[in-house]
Amino acid sequence: MQRFALIGAGFIGSVHAANLAANLHVDFRLVYDVDQDRAQTLAAAHGARAATSLDEVFDPSAIDAVFIASSTDTHAQHLRRAAEAGLAVLCEKPIDLDLEHARETAAYASERAIPVMMDFNRRFDSDYAELKRIVDAGEIGKVELIQLSSRGPAMPPLSYIATSGGQMRDQAVHFFDLARWLTGLDPVEVFATGSALAEPRLEEYGDVDTSAVTLRLPGGALVQIDCARRTGYGYDERIEIMGSTGMAEARRHRTGAVSRYQAGRVIDDGLHPGWFERVQPTYAAALAHFVAALDKCALGDGALIEGALITPSLEDGLKAQAIAEAAMASLRSGRTETINYEPVLVPSALHGSA
Amino acid sequence: MQRFALIGAGFIGSVHAANLAANLHVDFRLVYDVDQDRAQTLAAAHGARAATSLDEVFDPSAIDAVFIASSTDTHAQHLRRAAEAGLAVLCEKPIDLDLEHARETAAYASERAIPVMMDFNRRFDSDYAELKRIVDAGEIGKVELIQLSSRGPAMPPLSYIATSGGQMRDQAVHFFDLARWLTGLDPVEVFATGSALAEPRLEEYGDVDTSAVTLRLPGGALVQIDCARRTGYGYDERIEIMGSTGMAEARRHRTGAVSRYQAGRVIDDGLHPGWFERVQPTYAAALAHFVAALDKCALGDGALIEGALITPSLEDGLKAQAIAEAAMASLRSGRTETINYEPVLVPSALHGSA
Amino acid sequence: MQRFALIGAGFIGSVHAANLAANLHVDFRLVYDVDQDRAQTLAAAHGARAATSLDEVFDPSAIDAVFIASSTDTHAQHLRRAAEAGLAVLCEKPIDLDLEHARETAAYASERAIPVMMDFNRRFDSDYAELKRIVDAGEIGKVELIQLSSRGPAMPPLSYIATSGGQMRDQAVHFFDLARWLTGLDPVEVFATGSALAEPRLEEYGDVDTSAVTLRLPGGALVQIDCARRTGYGYDERIEIMGSTGMAEARRHRTGAVSRYQAGRVIDDGLHPGWFERVQPTYAAALAHFVAALDKCALGDGALIEGALITPSLEDGLKAQAIAEAAMASLRSGRTETINYEPVLVPSALHGSA
Amino acid sequence: MQRFALIGAGFIGSVHAANLAANLHVDFRLVYDVDQDRAQTLAAAHGARAATSLDEVFDPSAIDAVFIASSTDTHAQHLRRAAEAGLAVLCEKPIDLDLEHARETAAYASERAIPVMMDFNRRFDSDYAELKRIVDAGEIGKVELIQLSSRGPAMPPLSYIATSGGQMRDQAVHFFDLARWLTGLDPVEVFATGSALAEPRLEEYGDVDTSAVTLRLPGGALVQIDCARRTGYGYDERIEIMGSTGMAEARRHRTGAVSRYQAGRVIDDGLHPGWFERVQPTYAAALAHFVAALDKCALGDGALIEGALITPSLEDGLKAQAIAEAAMASLRSGRTETINYEPVLVPSALHGSA
Repeated sequence: MQRFALIGAGFIGSVHAANLAANLHVDFRLVYDVDQDRAQTLAAAHGARAATSLDEVFDPSAIDAVFIASSTDTHAQHLRRAAEAGLAVLCEKPIDLDLEHARETAAYASERAIPVMMDFNRRFDSDYAELKRIVDAGEIGKVELIQLSSRGPAMPPLSYIATSGGQMRDQAVHFFDLARWLTGLDPVEVFATGSALAEPRLEEYGDVDTSAVTLRLPGGALVQIDCARRTGYGYDERIEIMGSTGMAEARRHRTGAVSRYQAGRVIDDGLHPGWFERVQPTYAAALAHFVAALDKCALGDGALIEGALITPSLEDGLKAQAIAEAAMASLRSGRTETINYEPVLVPSALHGSA
Repeated sequence: MQRFALIGAGFIGSVHAANLAANLHVDFRLVYDVDQDRAQTLAAAHGARAATSLDEVFDPSAIDAVFIASSTDTHAQHLRRAAEAGLAVLCEKPIDLDLEHARETAAYASERAIPVMMDFNRRFDSDYAELKRIVDAGEIGKVELIQLSSRGPAMPPLSYIATSGGQMRDQAVHFFDLARWLTGLDPVEVFATGSALAEPRLEEYGDVDTSAVTLRLPGGALVQIDCARRTGYGYDERIEIMGSTGMAEARRHRTGAVSRYQAGRVIDDGLHPGWFERVQPTYAAALAHFVAALDKCALGDGALIEGALITPSLEDGLKAQAIAEAAMASLRSGRTETINYEPVLVPSALHGSA
Repeated sequence: MQRFALIGAGFIGSVHAANLAANLHVDFRLVYDVDQDRAQTLAAAHGARAATSLDEVFDPSAIDAVFIASSTDTHAQHLRRAAEAGLAVLCEKPIDLDLEHARETAAYASERAIPVMMDFNRRFDSDYAELKRIVDAGEIGKVELIQLSSRGPAMPPLSYIATSGGQMRDQAVHFFDLARWLTGLDPVEVFATGSALAEPRLEEYGDVDTSAVTLRLPGGALVQIDCARRTGYGYDERIEIMGSTGMAEARRHRTGAVSRYQAGRVIDDGLHPGWFERVQPTYAAALAHFVAALDKCALGDGALIEGALITPSLEDGLKAQAIAEAAMASLRSGRTETINYEPVLVPSALHGSA
Repeated sequence: MQRFALIGAGFIGSVHAANLAANLHVDFRLVYDVDQDRAQTLAAAHGARAATSLDEVFDPSAIDAVFIASSTDTHAQHLRRAAEAGLAVLCEKPIDLDLEHARETAAYASERAIPVMMDFNRRFDSDYAELKRIVDAGEIGKVELIQLSSRGPAMPPLSYIATSGGQMRDQAVHFFDLARWLTGLDPVEVFATGSALAEPRLEEYGDVDTSAVTLRLPGGALVQIDCARRTGYGYDERIEIMGSTGMAEARRHRTGAVSRYQAGRVIDDGLHPGWFERVQPTYAAALAHFVAALDKCALGDGALIEGALITPSLEDGLKAQAIAEAAMASLRSGRTETINYEPVLVPSALHGSA
């Protein structure tokens, strides 16, 4: 049983809390939030206790792993304290909106060799896992062309946009990670363009809500990503991979399997109303993956024996961010930008990247 | 080049005329119809000539093959004359609504050894041909359960119903033939029940517009057929075959490949508005099959050299009718009826069955 | 919070145990099984306690509701004891394999006015609920023709068959109930035929594994049901309802949304390997429905205030069984059998039927 | 009846010949080809005559319209002669590979006010027409994001590539035209990148076989196009249009409607083996559109009365080419290129653009 503390009791924190409570290998102990009432309520609903201070959270005698689900600007400091305390970390992306700061924090955690997993939850979607299996098994030959769509469903409030880092860092980054993961390759160049169509005021923030991104992979394979913050028809996410001998696609999900045939039309169930309904199962799957990895580590006195491989790693997180940074530069320059992964994080024995 | 005369210039006659004109192996010569103006118009539109009498049609010095597409009550007499003249025949189903009379006529034609093909056109649908290939190749194992649907789209006029022979003889008979053809088996028993839901006045004719039929095949496999004269959503025809190791289905056709995603629904193109749009390509394919078979026969002085195999044969036509008769008996009796194929037509060397 | 005892710790009992433990409105107290070790293990896994005797279970001071999930031959006795004790009951179908005994038991429970729900879980499938909404809203007009398929995936062991009551009582009965529920009509006649194709030894038990059933509804609408115990391609269940103005279907479920395009073929994810994967969510939904209904009842001293409506009711259970009995008679007679719902259970104020 | 001469008796010429022969409003008179035997054979097969010289073709006393389907480098000269003779022209794209020369030729034809239609046949696909109807009717709101895919199926020979003008001019140009037609907007900027993955020797020709193109429309809507010369799975073409309130897609076509369910997989019919099978019906539809437009023109002495609107026009042809030129520039520069439509062809009263 891994003893967990959860930092952050907002929407995504409450999702993680339910999964922590339901996971039979987790001893869900603490919830911390700057809003203590919120922490209290969430903890009570799932049989945990509200922590009165962060000292309680970062106590290796009572806690094995910390789930960082607080606001983005606090990820780095919590990660640093967990590293100091030798605790394992499951961290919401990104490490930090500032890539340099993220790199420093990651380097610090890496030196202390704590097990860290970035919660790129889409890697744990069963359809995407099947896509990766197909690619890895060579069933479609050598990858040549990928299309990813990430759309909607609704424009977030401007207040969210202001601190989100923008569409590349906040929305596209998931698909930058998926492109790396599915192909096992680090894109070398990116071109991005976009418009503020759903919410013209985004221009004041230098942001866009509708964008088209093209990545070039080593060897020349191409990746097209389209992102939209708002659709009029539900949440629409899908991936298609063309290889030299075949093609595989993970289609958009439907909400049901009912069709009506009326007046010369066939009317089917539609798409999920929101992103959460689509990806919900991936959060529990990601947690289960992390916990299983921790269980493989031998623990003693809070110090981990080296050798455990946990992905998505800090390095995976930094690389997806590096792509997002280059995409933002391209949005401004109107030209292809080379992606700069340097300075490369020295991978510890605990982490791989894929 | 086979020299053809067409008897019947109504709707289905005009379909056949266009196919005769377009077939590069056919010399389309004559059109006969009791309505001479109609014959004239149709012949002119397709480069043929209107026959002034049936003597012109049944003239082996000028004509090789007759396409019988006149009203049902005249099929038998035309078939008999063609047999007398030694002409090949492509015949709209049925031979005659009266099964005994049909048998006598078939026996007569069979003795004279003319090549005859019954125009069960659905056998020439490319999807159904693929179904048969799958079954014959053993890809789904031994056939155990079949579902066929034949629906709509619109209630024919009562005047048509009065002379159609009823839903079993007129509509279901196509699917009785398909069941035989797809499995290579002659059903042994039939149960049928039905209702007059779309047009209650059908009850006066002892007919139904919505029916459920169950066939039992030798060995115990089961066939379910549902027939409806009218749907509110277009023409709906499909077949599904479950075998011991897998299943194959020919899905209902769509009119296009466009979808709209709106307001939480997916709206696709619908079904064909009528049966004709669905089965149209099968008529030309059936004709081509017949002509190719004739080309394989060596012809001399109007007499055919034996050995040519043409299906669907007269025997196929009689067997489908025998099933329809038993189904009608079941509609009345409320119980399973044994299908009586006797007296079996002695198959000539020219014909196979299946 | 409804205090629950679960009777039966076999496979289906363990499914219900997990749902009882996860339902926030349930206080899951006891598990009883004739095999005490099995009860112990299941109870421990879900925070409940193993009952040492049935007296503990039927104790209204400690328990509000009993979930009967034991072997079929014990349902009636447990239902009777619950009625004596004034406890609410959620009961696996059937009440008893013997219809007369089932009726007596139901009458007894009805007189004591306890809330009872039969666990026809498919009524709680979200796709089927959407079908019913479409029918009830008149979106497809008046129902005329229904097709239900229930197939596979694997032949149960002969030992199971021997006590199952046969394919009509064990498998088709779910779909008899669905036909009643979806249309709001009680079928008047049934025709059934079947074969032992997957397991010829079934003939020794007077049973079949592949069957075709036709129901006639009041007003003449028809229902076709096909049942197969074994498929070679997974679990296949679906429903299609044709009305006078349109059609609605609940399609077979797929296990994912991934397609491969290879060598001129499109290969999709397949069907569920078993029935349980297909219907799993319905169990929790059925339980939630029951608990919500109980919450609406005012409870005092174990006696229920009248007025609560809980479906599927005992009467629903009896009616589905009555259809199965008539279907079995038809299997033997080869003819349409009238369905005898008499003696009709006097519905208490607590129960409706639909 | 429009009297037609066809120039070009190669593959695409033979497609047009069959359509000319089958169109009831066309009097198919002449076939011209530099290879006279080829002209002879094609003419004979379709009831036309082989022209012995181009003088016969460009004779307004015998011919009303010329179908230019010869090799690309001869289009401009034939168009010029037709303009001189006052004949109507249906012209295979492009006018000329050299955009400047194409503009001069178009201007010449425009001044002489002959009716000219560019054979962008995909505009006449029934699915794409439905897409356009949906967009024009405002059913998906304001267009924001479009995806077009054009893939395969097989790498053309290098000899073809050498004279094709490259992937942008030869393959993508159809989709540049579709993007303009579907939205009614002229793209302002283009970004293109590509690789020679299927045939690395393309690099010697400065060409690519796999490319990703992004267009920006006035107002900020984005268009993503992916092109591949070779797939391992058939011919794959589709379009998806996201608007502010909904989305519409024209899905890839299937070759049939048969599915097999085997071993936990669903195997469907695949895609067309080649582009021709997919777009075949559009050629006859484009011809019918052209002929109907001509029939609306009042003709006297070879001179057309002004006012007839025929699209796709020469201007449409030039604009699609202008986009292709800018895309080629972007392929080389690695940056967004502004599309230069100047000098704009002065549209005659005979032509519109859309």
